[in-house]
Amino acid sequence: MVLGAGKTAFGAFPDRSLRSLAVEAIEHALHDANIVPSQADAFYLGNFAGAPFTGQNHLAPYVASHAGLNGIPCTRVENACASGGSAFYQAWQAVGAGLYDFVVVAGVEKMTSQATPKVAEILAGAGDMATEGACGATFPSLFAMIARRHMYEFGTTREQLASVAVKNHANGARNPLAHMRKEITLEQALAGKVVAEPLTIYDCSLISDGAAALVLAPLERARGLSNRFAKILTVVQTSDHVALAEKRDITAFPAVVAAARQAYDKASVGPQDIDFAEVHDCFTIAEIVASEDLGFVAKGDGGRFAEAGCSARNGKIPINSTGGLKAKGHPVGATGVAQVCDVVAQLRGEAADCQVPRRRIGLAQNLGGSGATCVVSILGNV
Amino acid sequence: MVLGAGKTAFGAFPDRSLRSLAVEAIEHALHDANIVPSQADAFYLGNFAGAPFTGQNHLAPYVASHAGLNGIPCTRVENACASGGSAFYQAWQAVGAGLYDFVVVAGVEKMTSQATPKVAEILAGAGDMATEGACGATFPSLFAMIARRHMYEFGTTREQLASVAVKNHANGARNPLAHMRKEITLEQALAGKVVAEPLTIYDCSLISDGAAALVLAPLERARGLSNRFAKILTVVQTSDHVALAEKRDITAFPAVVAAARQAYDKASVGPQDIDFAEVHDCFTIAEIVASEDLGFVAKGDGGRFAEAGCSARNGKIPINSTGGLKAKGHPVGATGVAQVCDVVAQLRGEAADCQVPRRRIGLAQNLGGSGATCVVSILGNV
Repeated sequence: MVLGAGKTAFGAFPDRSLRSLAVEAIEHALHDANIVPSQADAFYLGNFAGAPFTGQNHLAPYVASHAGLNGIPCTRVENACASGGSAFYQAWQAVGAGLYDFVVVAGVEKMTSQATPKVAEILAGAGDMATEGACGATFPSLFAMIARRHMYEFGTTREQLASVAVKNHANGARNPLAHMRKEITLEQALAGKVVAEPLTIYDCSLISDGAAALVLAPLERARGLSNRFAKILTVVQTSDHVALAEKRDITAFPAVVAAARQAYDKASVGPQDIDFAEVHDCFTIAEIVASEDLGFVAKGDGGRFAEAGCSARNGKIPINSTGGLKAKGHPVGATGVAQVCDVVAQLRGEAADCQVPRRRIGLAQNLGGSGATCVVSILGNV
Repeated sequence: MVLGAGKTAFGAFPDRSLRSLAVEAIEHALHDANIVPSQADAFYLGNFAGAPFTGQNHLAPYVASHAGLNGIPCTRVENACASGGSAFYQAWQAVGAGLYDFVVVAGVEKMTSQATPKVAEILAGAGDMATEGACGATFPSLFAMIARRHMYEFGTTREQLASVAVKNHANGARNPLAHMRKEITLEQALAGKVVAEPLTIYDCSLISDGAAALVLAPLERARGLSNRFAKILTVVQTSDHVALAEKRDITAFPAVVAAARQAYDKASVGPQDIDFAEVHDCFTIAEIVASEDLGFVAKGDGGRFAEAGCSARNGKIPINSTGGLKAKGHPVGATGVAQVCDVVAQLRGEAADCQVPRRRIGLAQNLGGSGATCVVSILGNV
């Protein structure tokens, strides 16, 4: 069960440290769960690159000790942009296995203290530095190749990519914790400064600071403490090669396809049962590919699906109704945890202006690098 | 159960990549366990600072995909110098909870591609960069403060510190995989170049490249595959504040004291039952403090215990009979896993020239930073 959830705002916060952001999110989550720090039995922290970004490593006890989580097992988990989802997976496994009563899981990243070229270099470490990095390939260029190939294979258009950006900006404008709260038009998106053809600045997610946290507990402990808990139907983590060059087909992520299939099996649901989803739109093309890999739409139809408004907040399957990585922001290690926080808020009917109409079952999909790690979580109302 | 164990040599290997070291250790461990890569259900990787040292992050699938561990959950764990122990803790929990049959856990660090001042800066990230790091305090200076205070409180002498170095160098000289295979005299140790008073170069562990790996399985799967498996009696992970200034007493590590007490309780043994131990001698003073915190000797007597030869290979409780971090080497993320490999080798009676006489129950103690993380593992012959 998710007993409590809490997030900081996402944005550029020059006066906030990594630790203060993480501690704030944890305090929100503990308060939401109606427990005190000393009740926590274990702590998992998702963080991608605290050391390269800030110099500080050993982040799990560094954060926990200032959140009142003292003496317990504190473990940082790193899986690139899926670090948060991966920390959630570990925490869910541990609670599900009966090892602990209350587990706190947080995700955090402090990125904006570095200049953008340095950020791009650090992010490139989520890919294969010996091949992709050595060629100067940053993540926008890797996903530009994916977009180009998707356009070639399936007729996906720049307008379809841009429609994802327009939707997520519109959603983010309704989210008070989003980094970017600004609606854009299709024309603006298409006219954006090119980062890596065909991706413009509007196709790329944001460089953000922020944190998110959850409190997990088994059902028997959750009952009585709150009647607002959300049930975790399943969490699945999968892996694949890191380098794009080692994949047979770059228009799909096998790790996502496998994680989705396993998750649907384990939760005894299908893609048609998912009422809404938070997916990993590090780039607009990534949301399009995710909608296909998760089975929401047939392979190759993701662009048309988005363009037709099927993934809008009131569409067939609302995707990233809180703004996604594109507008909500993408503090890398926080993202996977924040996605689950957002799914929980939707399930509870507490998503305010971002609320989706159907809220029985929600899905979160967190991607590491260019698809070497995937975590798919399915949560539901009980 | 530990079904298989494998290590690379530790040393400075300019021609070897982080990945090739990790893959080599995994291949040794799989071969030792008598299983093929496709049988592995999950992979945990202990690594401290792959990104700052090498630029490469997202290390779990990066390593796993080249070791034939494809598609499974791959998770990197970071807990400073206890990253390896912490990965072992996660893997042991997962197997013990019945989540997987075969779990591969590896630890790796590639440190020698950076110049020593840069290495010291990266290692400082295991402490509190905002306070200790900002003052220029590297780890030798933090442990020098601990040593000074231990000398003041308990009369510990420089000769006693040096006696730990002499013992571990003698042990390392018998270990074909050790980084430093050179015996030293007490006079040499005392005359060593000062790094941070009272610690000389002989009081400090090495900057090394290397990897270690284990295959874990539940008893019912281990039987039939091998008759050389070692039983994991328990693994305990604890935490504490990161900054020395936040601790009340720097002559003991509360995380170690707590982990040892919990481990003895859970394994239904006491310190008197431990036949031998691999402890975290990142500095000679750390081995002395560990021998006290683990209950092998009364508080304050650790220096005299070492000087009297009680921790020698044929002493009362052999400590670091494979050379320890001091002589075997300290590729940070590998260390905690390598300690368990070494305990397993001793339990099996396969430690060759490093073999200890009594080998019923062995203990490994892995420390993160200046005591903010501790993992204590107790293993036994079954």
